Amino acid sequence: MADPSTSPPLTRASVQQARELISPHVHLTPVLTNATLTRLASTPRPAEPLRKGDTEEDSREDSKAPAPAAAASRPTIRLWFKCENLQRVGAFKVRGAFHAVERLKGDEGWVAGGGLERGVVTHSSGNHAQALALAAREAGIPAHIVMPDISAAPKVAATKGYGANVIFSGSTSVEREAAAARVIAETGATLVPPYDHPDIILGQGTLGLEFQEQVEALIESSGGDGGDGDGEREYGHDSPYDSAKHKKNNGNGRRRGLDAIITPCGGGGMLSGVALSCEGTGIQVFGAEPSFEGADDCRRGLEAGARVEAVSTLTIADGLRTPVGKYPWAVIYERRLVRQVFSVTEDEIRAALRLVLERMKLVVEPSAAVPLAVVLFNEEFRSLVEREAGEEGWDVGVVFSGGNVALENLGKLLTP
Amino acid sequence: MADPSTSPPLTRASVQQARELISPHVHLTPVLTNATLTRLASTPRPAEPLRKGDTEEDSREDSKAPAPAAAASRPTIRLWFKCENLQRVGAFKVRGAFHAVERLKGDEGWVAGGGLERGVVTHSSGNHAQALALAAREAGIPAHIVMPDISAAPKVAATKGYGANVIFSGSTSVEREAAAARVIAETGATLVPPYDHPDIILGQGTLGLEFQEQVEALIESSGGDGGDGDGEREYGHDSPYDSAKHKKNNGNGRRRGLDAIITPCGGGGMLSGVALSCEGTGIQVFGAEPSFEGADDCRRGLEAGARVEAVSTLTIADGLRTPVGKYPWAVIYERRLVRQVFSVTEDEIRAALRLVLERMKLVVEPSAAVPLAVVLFNEEFRSLVEREAGEEGWDVGVVFSGGNVALENLGKLLTP
Repeated sequence: MADPSTSPPLTRASVQQARELISPHVHLTPVLTNATLTRLASTPRPAEPLRKGDTEEDSREDSKAPAPAAAASRPTIRLWFKCENLQRVGAFKVRGAFHAVERLKGDEGWVAGGGLERGVVTHSSGNHAQALALAAREAGIPAHIVMPDISAAPKVAATKGYGANVIFSGSTSVEREAAAARVIAETGATLVPPYDHPDIILGQGTLGLEFQEQVEALIESSGGDGGDGDGEREYGHDSPYDSAKHKKNNGNGRRRGLDAIITPCGGGGMLSGVALSCEGTGIQVFGAEPSFEGADDCRRGLEAGARVEAVSTLTIADGLRTPVGKYPWAVIYERRLVRQVFSVTEDEIRAALRLVLERMKLVVEPSAAVPLAVVLFNEEFRSLVEREAGEEGWDVGVVFSGGNVALENLGKLLTP
Repeated sequence: MADPSTSPPLTRASVQQARELISPHVHLTPVLTNATLTRLASTPRPAEPLRKGDTEEDSREDSKAPAPAAAASRPTIRLWFKCENLQRVGAFKVRGAFHAVERLKGDEGWVAGGGLERGVVTHSSGNHAQALALAAREAGIPAHIVMPDISAAPKVAATKGYGANVIFSGSTSVEREAAAARVIAETGATLVPPYDHPDIILGQGTLGLEFQEQVEALIESSGGDGGDGDGEREYGHDSPYDSAKHKKNNGNGRRRGLDAIITPCGGGGMLSGVALSCEGTGIQVFGAEPSFEGADDCRRGLEAGARVEAVSTLTIADGLRTPVGKYPWAVIYERRLVRQVFSVTEDEIRAALRLVLERMKLVVEPSAAVPLAVVLFNEEFRSLVEREAGEEGWDVGVVFSGGNVALENLGKLLTP
């Protein structure tokens, strides 16, 4: 592993440096809005479960809307979506991978020690495998990827497609780590872990900087005062602002932008990176986890004041089955840069996933739908926003972390 | 039915007028590019069927690529995608529906005859039903929608969600038309057909005007000469140009833009409208149909020199099961504004659908994937481009017509 002590300090400025290193290699992914989902987020949850007909675009059939649950909170939320499902290899993971590889390339000792010839290694069956394979190929260095021998054939083919050397192992973490250790012993390759490393955290955090700037620019270009206007309605760039109601931050000097960002939390690399990107901005950062079989290790750890080190869950949000790593935990908990973490049920994840596919026509993986599920269905989060944001409401940034899902399973995924 | 003789003439100028009428109501949908699909379109078809690993993003493993089929053509194609799946109600159909309603509202005789109170009627189980319901609601007039009693519950709920009065009928066209006739007799509502009317054609054609302008602007903003540059890589706005290879139209006065547009062809409303939008521009217009069970009625009609008036097919491209209407046919065939129509197999549609979902992370319906299937898999189309475009290649605009697909069926749809 690249010596973490040589990494830049975990600060917003370091995230900005990381952005300069990786921006030629990653997409500036779009930020989209969606009128239906913004309205749904600002509507008290119905007493009955969500039904299909309730969420039609522009539905103004208020008289027919189901009665809100007695205790339902009434937050005002304007949603902005950062589409990392449209990122290269279909996930934010390329940010960390490119940053780690660029940092190694800039390390004279590593290069002098033959690093460029020895390359990099990781063990992953998911998005990090393809991300590192791509980053290594563009750097012209070898990549060794240890994958469980039960990995889906398309994932193996995709990783090989990026030119990586794929080594199969057993599927337990002990077997995978042993296989990676053997590769390191044999090849001298450098381990690039999927999340528990400062370089990875700083790389993932770059999406937070983009998100902040993009939303500010979109609000500004919409005139900031609503302005439905007579012009053409550009898709996805309709401001969720309603000029009559929202005069947020007018005249107080701060530029209008996000009030909060919520990201999925698995190993915590993205959550902690985004938290660093928001340090000192006043933007609140939240995490989102599945509750199934204890997948909400970060939430539980924050409550207990101690990191949960092992998790065993088969949540459908398969990117979030890992416990939070040590470096992310230090940012999330010890430095208190994450305000709170919320969890949602499998059914709530399914409902959010369905809304994204049906309403936004975007393919996202189940893990990517978890933050939206929190915004729409978690009463604790929603009452927090109602309490703190008041009538003016919050601009909430939701990160769609990735879009790699087996389409054959989608029907099964969407039905409980 | 609004008297077609009062419609504006079927010209490009009328499409421009239609655009002014509907632009406050419809989205200016984005135009996206995709490096993988552009490369795939410009790669000779392999002798063996497409395999998953062959199409990875940025794959440069040319040595491992399968050998091209002996007769495979070698066109150079740069792809641009018009994303009407991101349109309101998830399909281009709102363009024609809003145009028809706006034209009625501007008809003094219709208004004086109580048209605003009597409203509009159509029979449709598909996107036109929701499109007309939305257009009527925004115009503040009643909409009566005749739907077959076997319609999927979500489609009925969605149509009702827009405030329409849904009337059930039997599922044959005779039963549906009889039901619509009864509604007209009882309510005095005006029939707005899904495609066979000049106002509908002109409305659908507006997407062609946008497409032309958007591609020209995107090429221009990319510097027109490639320019990978050191700046940030904005998603979907990477120019497919390679400065070293493509110097198209340099200095010949014509602004760089699309050389061709290919759209799906069901009733022919969109195909004929887009053809009108291209009249006099030099842009070639092509249609795309499924071949399954004779769904390629337009292609067959063009060959025979006579419109095919009835079709009975259960192609997975369920939006394209109808025969071309009379008004579209006059534009497509009699006025020769469509160059040629190509057809593809169900498996080719499935392969294209999968590529859009997996590579672009966009949800499209099977009908929307038909033009891409032609571009990637139809040798007749591909050899035409090779022959006419030469090494310089063509900028080909592909219309993603809609994104309304039952997600539960997606797995089934994708496997033969």
